[in-house]
Amino acid sequence: MPISKQQIRDLRRLQQKKFREQEQAFLIEGVRLCEEALTAGAPLECAFFTPQEMGNPRSRDLLQAFSDAGVPLQPVDAATLAALTETQSPQGITALVRTSGAGPFSPAANREPLVLAIDRLADPGNLGTLMRTAQWFGVRTLLLSRDSVELHNPKVVRSSMGALFRLRVHENVDLVHAAAEAKAAGWRLLAAEAAAGRSARQLTGSGRDLLFIGSEAHGLKSGLDPLIDLRITIPGSSGVESLNAAIAAGILLYQLTAPQ
Amino acid sequence: MPISKQQIRDLRRLQQKKFREQEQAFLIEGVRLCEEALTAGAPLECAFFTPQEMGNPRSRDLLQAFSDAGVPLQPVDAATLAALTETQSPQGITALVRTSGAGPFSPAANREPLVLAIDRLADPGNLGTLMRTAQWFGVRTLLLSRDSVELHNPKVVRSSMGALFRLRVHENVDLVHAAAEAKAAGWRLLAAEAAAGRSARQLTGSGRDLLFIGSEAHGLKSGLDPLIDLRITIPGSSGVESLNAAIAAGILLYQLTAPQ
Repeated sequence: MPISKQQIRDLRRLQQKKFREQEQAFLIEGVRLCEEALTAGAPLECAFFTPQEMGNPRSRDLLQAFSDAGVPLQPVDAATLAALTETQSPQGITALVRTSGAGPFSPAANREPLVLAIDRLADPGNLGTLMRTAQWFGVRTLLLSRDSVELHNPKVVRSSMGALFRLRVHENVDLVHAAAEAKAAGWRLLAAEAAAGRSARQLTGSGRDLLFIGSEAHGLKSGLDPLIDLRITIPGSSGVESLNAAIAAGILLYQLTAPQ
Repeated sequence: MPISKQQIRDLRRLQQKKFREQEQAFLIEGVRLCEEALTAGAPLECAFFTPQEMGNPRSRDLLQAFSDAGVPLQPVDAATLAALTETQSPQGITALVRTSGAGPFSPAANREPLVLAIDRLADPGNLGTLMRTAQWFGVRTLLLSRDSVELHNPKVVRSSMGALFRLRVHENVDLVHAAAEAKAAGWRLLAAEAAAGRSARQLTGSGRDLLFIGSEAHGLKSGLDPLIDLRITIPGSSGVESLNAAIAAGILLYQLTAPQ
């Protein structure tokens, strides 16, 4: 049965945050993201593709994999695919993914050595890059504050390069509450600071670290400040005000994951 | 004398790469970038501002500083400023900067401990972030390959946060030629590699390092490969294909600038 006008309208609404949250779903675009979602076992609901663009071996393999995984495949014409997608070259395919939600973060139960908490990050590319970097360094869990960019923003999804499907991301977290709980449960609370903190070079992982990354412009929200156990500064030499938040996070994750 | 229609047309053409290269000039937008350009002594030719938006203390100070530095100030109406600028909030001011060009890179004469070479980087935000990070770690000189994004692309300029005015950037460099010359002059040639290189954690600066950062998608161009003395991999734990180029560069600069 061909896709209906109403279905197209419903799917197009997912380009707006409001409807992504309401429907608990989002669209991913392109062969690579679809591959990543499949491999990671993301809850894929349906894939829409233009057959004439899916003739190369990699795309054929992807269709086969979708089929093997029981994901319904819906052929559409080029105009429909263009209507559903935002990128200039969606490579002939887009897929609907359900967002399950990670539930509440429980610092008492969590036994991971290093968890990342993101406070007020506004730039979608930065959040995506940060997730990709966190995954590289073996981080499994990420807390995202209420006032950060939305996790399923298409630019976040694209720049995360699939890390979105691998990390357990707790969204809309009240970080002050989470920080207080974590502190009571024995976590060490770390924060990156542009100047005057302890040098990052002396830093080693404690085996139970919660690392806060704030926005470059605003730093951490005020309620968090008194809870932080250790402020860390990346040594720098010149008149730059601060490092980009994802760069700072990358360097601190690199340092904290060094074997001791 | 008010700005003429012809002047507006000429300035608007600078939104295109072709004309930026032909005129050897580009426009910067907003109070902060103008401040950075002034402080760094960039060759500012003229500033265009809407008086009604420049009434706050910081903006008034900027106008005074432009005036003190002998930079001509040209008041324009809001429609003209909007026509000249690309950002949604240029904060009432844009300025014309000449590009001087850094001339050829001379590895025999250069005595800096660490120079960065960028190969085929396409993403403008990545290049800007990379420049900002390089400045943080005290890098002074940067080589940019012919096939990278243009240095004066507005997104590069914005994301560099002023580092553009502080670094000496050699543009359109034939990196294979530069690498061969540097090698002959005793430089150590380093490159980031996604896997199978020496671990970054063992890396120390040699005092004469040329670090190549390639694009994530394509790596280094083939002619460079045989010239590299040391391939470096940032240890990572999981299924991520590679780190973002700016993140990798940030970590390697952090490691290479560690005191020994």
